[in-house]
Amino acid sequence: MLTFVGLGLWDERSVTVEGRDALRTADQVFAEFYTSKLAGATLDDIESHHGIEVEVRSREGVEQEPDPILDAAASGDVVFCTAGDTMIATTHVDLRLRAHERGIETRVVHGTTAAAAAASLTGLQNYRFGKATTLPFPYAHGGRASKDASGERTESASVPDSVLDTVGANRERGLHTLCFLDIKVDHELAEDDEYMTASTAAALLTDAGRGDELGVVVARAGSPDPVVTADRLAALAERDFGDPLHLLVLPGELHYIERDALVELADAPADLADERLA
Amino acid sequence: MLTFVGLGLWDERSVTVEGRDALRTADQVFAEFYTSKLAGATLDDIESHHGIEVEVRSREGVEQEPDPILDAAASGDVVFCTAGDTMIATTHVDLRLRAHERGIETRVVHGTTAAAAAASLTGLQNYRFGKATTLPFPYAHGGRASKDASGERTESASVPDSVLDTVGANRERGLHTLCFLDIKVDHELAEDDEYMTASTAAALLTDAGRGDELGVVVARAGSPDPVVTADRLAALAERDFGDPLHLLVLPGELHYIERDALVELADAPADLADERLA
Repeated sequence: MLTFVGLGLWDERSVTVEGRDALRTADQVFAEFYTSKLAGATLDDIESHHGIEVEVRSREGVEQEPDPILDAAASGDVVFCTAGDTMIATTHVDLRLRAHERGIETRVVHGTTAAAAAASLTGLQNYRFGKATTLPFPYAHGGRASKDASGERTESASVPDSVLDTVGANRERGLHTLCFLDIKVDHELAEDDEYMTASTAAALLTDAGRGDELGVVVARAGSPDPVVTADRLAALAERDFGDPLHLLVLPGELHYIERDALVELADAPADLADERLA
Repeated sequence: MLTFVGLGLWDERSVTVEGRDALRTADQVFAEFYTSKLAGATLDDIESHHGIEVEVRSREGVEQEPDPILDAAASGDVVFCTAGDTMIATTHVDLRLRAHERGIETRVVHGTTAAAAAASLTGLQNYRFGKATTLPFPYAHGGRASKDASGERTESASVPDSVLDTVGANRERGLHTLCFLDIKVDHELAEDDEYMTASTAAALLTDAGRGDELGVVVARAGSPDPVVTADRLAALAERDFGDPLHLLVLPGELHYIERDALVELADAPADLADERLA
């Protein structure tokens, strides 16, 4: 049996009780942290809190060499865990399909997700979000952070057209857009920039001519003290929101209660929020 | 302090460890089950598993008379819990805003959600879903389940245009649509139909001329044995998927791994899935 367990958003207590029980009764526990990480817990925290040993697999160790996991699951109870919900990436679906091919039973224990948390924490309604998008580091899509050689700013330099297209298509329908921010672990060009901050994201969007638009930063969703701040993107670009992970929401139309939530709970400038009222 | 706790998807063990600890250390625990319910646990199960007493509030008891909850939270540690994630409905955001107005500190402990589970269980990628929609019972939007008086089928009779518009707008962008199915607890017209089944949903869509399209049923997401079945909507309408809750996903374009997941894990007819390959 191969049980996929989502560890949730923050630390060793973000897993569900059902997931915790699966971890504790498993014969063997594997994990991957290349698609996402628990920002509030180390591997040691997880192992000692649950009284288990965890074998962390690299991307190659899951995608190219899945046999150790599958062999163990063919003969015993194996848990494969990830941050957030499980099966969130194709790499997990692929592993599940390989297990299925070998006749190994699989089970999914769900975890909390950044998408749901972003809606909850901002007071923006879940069913009023359109397609989500990911804002990449400029070096990852061939762009640059700021001006080109001639000193002129071009939209494609800072933010890929595909991201702006998604935001635009959602907004045409009045829908909010959740922007995941790039994570580059051990990337040769990443330097210390492993996690894109919301300030960087807001600066990139400001470079793309969106500085006057309303943005909502969600920092450390799922932690005991998440920060939720709404302001013009140009103003958000000047702020420091502390430790990762950060998310950025670009609201579409606002219902009254959404407007009130952004103003009262996230300090949105009232005039800016009022402009968005449906 | 008022802590909002999401109980997750299925039973008393679907809550996170952090949420369980909040329930167990609270001075008082309130709950509402009018926006959603735990299908796999009774109130007794929740109370006895966690060793707590829960005061269940009706919609009126939350929206019109929130003072007992707020008074308790002003002087002690109070938990307000709901199925799924918390803050999923405006009714919860409104309660949080009222607490904020009174200077009561609030905190959110997230829960697992049907939207994330639908993506996980079907193998369809979370970031390829567009706006979600809710399919209402025909009596709830003035339509009828089947034919009109002249015996002719009309689209508006079974499914509101707004639902078909959402599915269409998502599909134009290649995106999947998650359809929540209507819940009517204690509705005067509901009879035994409190939870719309996926069969009923598929029949309504078949009545609306969509019978040849691919649908994916997810029954009892978050339970130990969820059912995931993909087929033509007309065929799904003839099947029985057992106890609630049910969800229906209408896929947009499929990536290869999504196609494989639907065929291998959900028994989708291969020809139907292949038509949707991007």
